[in-house]
Amino acid sequence: MANTAHEKGLQLLSTVKAEGTLELSLVSVPTPEPKADEVVVRVEATPLNPSDLGLLLGGADASAMRAAGEGVVTASVPPEMMRAMASRVGQELPVGNEGAGTVVAAGANAQAWLGKTVSVIGGAMYAQFRCVHVGQCQELPAGTTAEDGASWFVNPLTALGMVETMRSEGHTALVHTAAASNLGQMLQKVCLKDDVSLVNIVRKPEQAASLRELGAKYVCDSSAPTFMEELIEALDKTSATIAFDAIGGGKLGSQILTAMEVAASRKAGAYSRYGSTTFKQLYIYGGLDRSPTVLQRSFGFSWSIGGWLLTPFLQKAGGETRDRLRARVASELKTTFASHYARRISLREALDPKVIAAYGKQSTGEKYLITPQAS
Amino acid sequence: MANTAHEKGLQLLSTVKAEGTLELSLVSVPTPEPKADEVVVRVEATPLNPSDLGLLLGGADASAMRAAGEGVVTASVPPEMMRAMASRVGQELPVGNEGAGTVVAAGANAQAWLGKTVSVIGGAMYAQFRCVHVGQCQELPAGTTAEDGASWFVNPLTALGMVETMRSEGHTALVHTAAASNLGQMLQKVCLKDDVSLVNIVRKPEQAASLRELGAKYVCDSSAPTFMEELIEALDKTSATIAFDAIGGGKLGSQILTAMEVAASRKAGAYSRYGSTTFKQLYIYGGLDRSPTVLQRSFGFSWSIGGWLLTPFLQKAGGETRDRLRARVASELKTTFASHYARRISLREALDPKVIAAYGKQSTGEKYLITPQAS
Repeated sequence: MANTAHEKGLQLLSTVKAEGTLELSLVSVPTPEPKADEVVVRVEATPLNPSDLGLLLGGADASAMRAAGEGVVTASVPPEMMRAMASRVGQELPVGNEGAGTVVAAGANAQAWLGKTVSVIGGAMYAQFRCVHVGQCQELPAGTTAEDGASWFVNPLTALGMVETMRSEGHTALVHTAAASNLGQMLQKVCLKDDVSLVNIVRKPEQAASLRELGAKYVCDSSAPTFMEELIEALDKTSATIAFDAIGGGKLGSQILTAMEVAASRKAGAYSRYGSTTFKQLYIYGGLDRSPTVLQRSFGFSWSIGGWLLTPFLQKAGGETRDRLRARVASELKTTFASHYARRISLREALDPKVIAAYGKQSTGEKYLITPQAS
Repeated sequence: MANTAHEKGLQLLSTVKAEGTLELSLVSVPTPEPKADEVVVRVEATPLNPSDLGLLLGGADASAMRAAGEGVVTASVPPEMMRAMASRVGQELPVGNEGAGTVVAAGANAQAWLGKTVSVIGGAMYAQFRCVHVGQCQELPAGTTAEDGASWFVNPLTALGMVETMRSEGHTALVHTAAASNLGQMLQKVCLKDDVSLVNIVRKPEQAASLRELGAKYVCDSSAPTFMEELIEALDKTSATIAFDAIGGGKLGSQILTAMEVAASRKAGAYSRYGSTTFKQLYIYGGLDRSPTVLQRSFGFSWSIGGWLLTPFLQKAGGETRDRLRARVASELKTTFASHYARRISLREALDPKVIAAYGKQSTGEKYLITPQAS
């Protein structure tokens, strides 16, 4: 091995306890010896994605955390959330889907990776060192830093996965909600580059402006009184019949399907008592609004709503598609897939109740980056 | 042609007028000359299915019809329903999906059909005579009457279509709501014959009893306080992961998906923050409850909800499957696919405001049959 400075390192753990509390702790753990096809990565940058926050906070209120000793914070988990947490109670879970850093040790078959800057996928990245199989690593091009490569997987592959899903399921244009997010901006850039029509739905007027600056052609603000008319118009022009919804709760999904149906009926002509024959697909991939999804069912019978997640998509897509998408991300990390962070925090700061309250808000455009080597 | 007694006949028409009224009328229309591959069927029995009522009533309240001259009744259509009726305004639409009767005239290539008792699919059956292509006819076995064969298509093929869909989409058992209906009873009989596990959901205790008499093993009453526990137990035992829902509105669909998820999680073991990997499918094929569908989304991300209709299913299934299913129905019309009618009415009685109010209730077990040759 190249050196031994990585023998131990800090690791963030999240535990839901049977008595109904969440405990976040920072512990010093030994770094495993890499096996033949493994490498040890010194993690230098790892983002706080919404999907990480779900696991990290375990249903607890991010604004109600309190210190409980050196490197430990706790909060209570509401009783109604404890049911969903049943199968993780008592387990000390590592957190952090993705990140990037430098290879500081390598197994017999992985010596060529030593010293390289790599992006990593595979969980437990909120740590100073992470031992992973080389298949979980993506070498970064010269001039691309660990910070450039930290958010290489979840958002970029989700954006590409949406466009792939659109194509493979026979649609030609798509709709995206919470569209001003980091992910939404990436998706808009992908669509501009690939010449795919995208209908962006945002929740505030200022978010519409930021997307238009990127070159977005269709931006509908759901807070506007003219929202439905504008959405129908955009769907009429683009013929988008698939939508990816990060909100989940409320009536937005139902409104999108209804607007698709109105746009389709304009083109159809004759009356059909069961609605248009145009197939309309809504995928819910997030739950920014945790209230129930309310469907008015004023969109005929030719529709489907389902959950959409990146991992099952990638499994279904197969190795060739996965490799193609990963290579595209690596080559466009500083352009199409560039991420912006509101703040960089150390692992210790990630356990500061005030900081948790801030990143727990999940405000659009307020993404945090953990830099585990900072003290 | 065999005779000329069918030169003219009564026909029921449904019209939504621009001023917001529905008009039902009985008119005398000339019977077309059958082309080479066509036959004229003297319609002797044709059922009032829920799917017929939607077209017939055009959004009007069935209990608010009033006579408006000889063979004409009207009712107002609520303004909120008029939007959905836009594309049928002003059109005099014939009604009646299916029925049965005797072939009284036949084209050059269809002479072999003369005198036969046939079941027919294809709309406009609320009439004394109907000219159709022979491909829309199914010859009935000796001893099977027109009344036996009247409901040969919609319910029997829907029941068979559900089991076919279950199999083709990789599920091994199914759930059905409003399960005490004519359709529900047929589905239970099909499942018993084909050795498929069926979880029946009913809305009243007495409906559970009628299904158990048929041999149903799993019957859950959604009005019982123990409903969710019983449903989870039945899903655990059967591993049913697909449901067909005739209700549409309210929380029942969400409850079914949640119960499927709980049953799947029992078998899964380790915690997954995104729920079980078991794919759960809910198909909405009716709208007995017109209120919004409310989804609690407490069932992970591996699920889909969609509309399901018989016609697209049959189109997708292909000719071989269609022929196989139709032949099975014809041979089991007096057993598996026997229908029961609460009352037989003439075409004139079908336009009686009191009678409309009665069949418009769509009470489970209260199906009406029109006998167009009765005066």
